[in-house]
Amino acid sequence: MKSEHEIIARLRELFPRTGDDAAVIGDQVITVDMLVEDVDFTQSVPIRFIARKSLAVNLSDLAAMGAQPRYAVVALGLPQWVNVDMLTDALAEAAREYDIEIVGGDLSRSGKLVISITAIGEAKEPLLRSGAKAGDRIYVSRPLGGAAAGLAFLGKPLDDMPYSLREFAQSAVQRQIDPEPEIELGMKLAGIATACIDISDGLSTDLDHLCEASNVGAEITRERIPVFPGLIESGLNVRDAVLNGGEEYALLFTSRLRESELSARVGRPVYAIGKIVEGHGVTLDGQPLPPRGWDHFA
Amino acid sequence: MKSEHEIIARLRELFPRTGDDAAVIGDQVITVDMLVEDVDFTQSVPIRFIARKSLAVNLSDLAAMGAQPRYAVVALGLPQWVNVDMLTDALAEAAREYDIEIVGGDLSRSGKLVISITAIGEAKEPLLRSGAKAGDRIYVSRPLGGAAAGLAFLGKPLDDMPYSLREFAQSAVQRQIDPEPEIELGMKLAGIATACIDISDGLSTDLDHLCEASNVGAEITRERIPVFPGLIESGLNVRDAVLNGGEEYALLFTSRLRESELSARVGRPVYAIGKIVEGHGVTLDGQPLPPRGWDHFA
Repeated sequence: MKSEHEIIARLRELFPRTGDDAAVIGDQVITVDMLVEDVDFTQSVPIRFIARKSLAVNLSDLAAMGAQPRYAVVALGLPQWVNVDMLTDALAEAAREYDIEIVGGDLSRSGKLVISITAIGEAKEPLLRSGAKAGDRIYVSRPLGGAAAGLAFLGKPLDDMPYSLREFAQSAVQRQIDPEPEIELGMKLAGIATACIDISDGLSTDLDHLCEASNVGAEITRERIPVFPGLIESGLNVRDAVLNGGEEYALLFTSRLRESELSARVGRPVYAIGKIVEGHGVTLDGQPLPPRGWDHFA
Repeated sequence: MKSEHEIIARLRELFPRTGDDAAVIGDQVITVDMLVEDVDFTQSVPIRFIARKSLAVNLSDLAAMGAQPRYAVVALGLPQWVNVDMLTDALAEAAREYDIEIVGGDLSRSGKLVISITAIGEAKEPLLRSGAKAGDRIYVSRPLGGAAAGLAFLGKPLDDMPYSLREFAQSAVQRQIDPEPEIELGMKLAGIATACIDISDGLSTDLDHLCEASNVGAEITRERIPVFPGLIESGLNVRDAVLNGGEEYALLFTSRLRESELSARVGRPVYAIGKIVEGHGVTLDGQPLPPRGWDHFA
């Protein structure tokens, strides 16, 4: 089978508007995600969190476009094991929390649980992947590596761990199964960020996507990348979790502004990790950093 | 597991805008469908037709709302057996044919092929299920029963059949695997139809849906229902195919206008099959007609 990259390249030829986190139609942006049992989650995760995450990943795409969430439609492929009431109640709860209205849906039977959500948001000045220019600073919105660490602990008994590690494992699992889309931040970045993407596949891969779309290169510095609290002490592979861990749903963006000025403008900390340069590809501390994040077909 | 009816009732409580063929947001309508391998189709159907149909079923929902197709997003769960190029090329071809732009998508691995499409259309006066009034005539847009007949022949060798039956089988299989959404007709019915739905689950079930939404009853006449050419001579169960066969994607609608006047207004034949009455439920030739069409969870 072709790689995801090859398939997506072909899709962009066929459907020129695809390629950003969401498509822009007038002042609307629209995005779709599909989560499949045993690929994107397993039955070991409580159904409530599966439902929340299926909405959150879409909202993260809207956040990356700087859009305000408005409407969503939900298609469900339902196997026997699913408690449908718990699933739909959790969707309703998450929709209220994120202030998005679910306006339609479709149901099918299915051997594995499949949740596909399409979300529509509004953005007067949508953030694109393609606007980064040489000299821009590169930012991440929060410490990285927690989602990958959570994946390592998922479904494992935490009882035998030392207390300090258990606490870390719980917060990492939380980050993995209940990600927070950066909706507020995305909306504040209009007019501030020159390009933006959410970290769904991993920093190395998503920064590569942003650079490719903007036709630039990037230089980042390892010690400037904020690390999820407790990860360094956990004994896990910190470098891999931070650089290649997917499902972070932090925002990765570029701006002319300095870190202090940008943090003041958005009213919260953000983290400058490097700068955009002429050319192609990403380097970390001067060495090439290949995109080693999640490939859905690897 | 709950019945589809029970699940949908719960979804309507949670998400009040759901329930029509598509949701209305301003002058936009939005609809989603999910097709799952071995539930909605099998590998015996050429991938080109699976792709076309996955778009057509959405466009039929837009047609039932009287909407002009505008944009779609596509989520694909891809197993190894699928030729992705053939799938995406067929989607692109169908999108051109139906004049809808595919603006975004998502890819996932999956054990079974899953295609979920969200389509957005425009309608200044969207047709709803809920506008039928006692005294309205009930119409179908074309002869029924072909899709169900096609399903009976699907994957069977047609070589041994007598020539006349083979010709019928081919046209029925065509209707089943390559349905034509009634987009043009739907758009012409604005201001003419009082209520509209597409026949996806079967006439008995979809007329029941329309009556429930409009809080009325319906009386239809067996001999007025147009039958797919060749079905009567085929030896198949005509009554069941016509009344309960799903996946027709004909339009079922109501109007004050007479058949001759309505046909003249829309420039093509349409078929009056009965009338809307006070009360509840559907009768056929005076006998109760229970909804026996497709239930996704039966």
